[in-house]
Amino acid sequence: MSILTRAILEINLNNLLDNYRVLREISGKAIPAAVVKDDAYGLGAEKVVDTLYERANVRYFFTAHAIEALPIAQKYDDAVIYVLQGVGEDSVDIFKNSSRIIPVIGSKEMWQFWKKLKIVDRRPAIQVETGLNRLGFREKDIAGLSKDDIQQFGLLLSHLACGDEKDHFMNEHQITNFEAIKQKYFADIPATLAASDGVFLGWRFQQDMVRLGAAMYGINTAPYRQNQMKNVVVVKAPVLQIADLAKGDFVGYSATYRAAGMRKIAVVSIGYGDGIPRSLSNVGKIFFRTAKGVEEARIIGRVSMDNVICDVSNISKVELGDEAILSDEFYTLDDMARDAGTISYEIMSRLGKNKRFVRRYIED
Amino acid sequence: MSILTRAILEINLNNLLDNYRVLREISGKAIPAAVVKDDAYGLGAEKVVDTLYERANVRYFFTAHAIEALPIAQKYDDAVIYVLQGVGEDSVDIFKNSSRIIPVIGSKEMWQFWKKLKIVDRRPAIQVETGLNRLGFREKDIAGLSKDDIQQFGLLLSHLACGDEKDHFMNEHQITNFEAIKQKYFADIPATLAASDGVFLGWRFQQDMVRLGAAMYGINTAPYRQNQMKNVVVVKAPVLQIADLAKGDFVGYSATYRAAGMRKIAVVSIGYGDGIPRSLSNVGKIFFRTAKGVEEARIIGRVSMDNVICDVSNISKVELGDEAILSDEFYTLDDMARDAGTISYEIMSRLGKNKRFVRRYIED
Repeated sequence: MSILTRAILEINLNNLLDNYRVLREISGKAIPAAVVKDDAYGLGAEKVVDTLYERANVRYFFTAHAIEALPIAQKYDDAVIYVLQGVGEDSVDIFKNSSRIIPVIGSKEMWQFWKKLKIVDRRPAIQVETGLNRLGFREKDIAGLSKDDIQQFGLLLSHLACGDEKDHFMNEHQITNFEAIKQKYFADIPATLAASDGVFLGWRFQQDMVRLGAAMYGINTAPYRQNQMKNVVVVKAPVLQIADLAKGDFVGYSATYRAAGMRKIAVVSIGYGDGIPRSLSNVGKIFFRTAKGVEEARIIGRVSMDNVICDVSNISKVELGDEAILSDEFYTLDDMARDAGTISYEIMSRLGKNKRFVRRYIED
Repeated sequence: MSILTRAILEINLNNLLDNYRVLREISGKAIPAAVVKDDAYGLGAEKVVDTLYERANVRYFFTAHAIEALPIAQKYDDAVIYVLQGVGEDSVDIFKNSSRIIPVIGSKEMWQFWKKLKIVDRRPAIQVETGLNRLGFREKDIAGLSKDDIQQFGLLLSHLACGDEKDHFMNEHQITNFEAIKQKYFADIPATLAASDGVFLGWRFQQDMVRLGAAMYGINTAPYRQNQMKNVVVVKAPVLQIADLAKGDFVGYSATYRAAGMRKIAVVSIGYGDGIPRSLSNVGKIFFRTAKGVEEARIIGRVSMDNVICDVSNISKVELGDEAILSDEFYTLDDMARDAGTISYEIMSRLGKNKRFVRRYIED
């Protein structure tokens, strides 16, 4: 028995690297770029970039914002970082600083803005709209570009809406649009369409460069396939208290759980303040490694900011300080997301941002 | 028209202070302590503590973890910080460092652990269980304490399950339990039962100290009352793109929105990576300040990591770079939480942790 209070976030960089290598293999001849936006989905962009750069020779990166690209450009003088949200008045200084931070231009207005900056030491990427209806030049905007404009771009980019569903009609719709635009306007520059999910759709989608993100972090981005990726994130927290419930006792905020009989509960030192979704209230699961293997307990009552409570009546052995496992390879963030009614991307992004975690990177 | 890319989080410390003062007034003679756990609900513990300490003479603070208490103790040599999750092997060093970091002892095992440390320069708090069934000594555990043990505690603490519902039977149940325990074992030391919600239940619940958290941050913790609190958090992000949809066009991941006719959409540079709940997909609202006042647009399609899309067909005027308002006093985080199917505490805690925001503190 131990007395412990702090939750632990383990990030397995070896597995992340293995995932990257599998994805690179699947991607054939396409250049494998790494998507490290949103602090590498919360896992720590610095560590992830170091690992990919040093151990797998990754030189191309994607971030959402220029401010995310800056530290990479400063640290590695041969890394190229594409910025998906592009350039604006609030990021001009960063782009002026480094010729290896490349904006992805997503609208004709942004293009005019970029041209006025007269930054001529790099060729920006152009994002074109093919069906997602998010960022990107619409066909009529492309048609409005001069020949000289078109020649200034160095990479053609679009993004799939339904790459996670192999047979979704949108995939054919988007690749057809993309190839038409490429052929008509951008036949001479490299093209990128696929993020992690698109990689599994084959060479036609892989084009010249793939943007490897979620799958590298262990997420199953192609859920119609069994997940080939290794698990990267483990979340655990100590049991702070074990107590008995009498029949009729309530648990947690708003008294949303009532014991139908005698129960044994464990209070675990982690909550939504640490990124555990509150929607797991009365629904989620917590696991314990015992002599019998991995045993499963149900979350009861509301998930609160710092604690979550589970019913350990049927767990063969639980003591104070034991590691309650919120997520591991047998119950990945994909599994947690299914129970929470969301996607693992969202949970991962939240978990990784918490300063209170004891954060452990596993690496060779 | 401007080209901008970064989202903005505004935290109004003046309003936070005003809220604190209102709550202090309502709390009568009770000592008003400030709850700054989880990085002050994500709003930045350092800034919040500075403001409360310097402008309102707050000297008592509550955190969840010792690691959150440490910077406060180091900066202010007359601040007292109670640590709600208590002490463990993973936080002993911090407790040894400062006599003003006080553990809230929540179990008899933790009490044995604390005694063995022989830290005698402070009196810990004791948390007792009165109905929440989370952390705290159960009655039989209290009965097992020696007289000498009992005299070593300096504060009696418990926590309400249903303080946000004035007439909930649990309130009477818990206050009765609390008063009985106090009278029987801890009549000589101060007692604290109420967090923000309990403050509104009157003097009997306020006891000797109140723990002001959520309400101070603007959350309506007593939703049966109109919110007396001023709004503290404003979230906004620039419009990155405006585009037309044709009838039948789909929007966003998994093509969950299909245009029934011609539409005008705006792509806003903020997403779940910044803390906007993905459950606002096809449900949430985004606002624009125009000459006509505050106009409302619906979120369409899935909220993605870096972007959210809304239907601006009926907005009188929207241009690139305009501020899309995700939350302000007319649509607080409480309102957003209702649409997202959660509570504002969870959203606030997420929003505040994002490094990508341009973070602005408003203060005199």
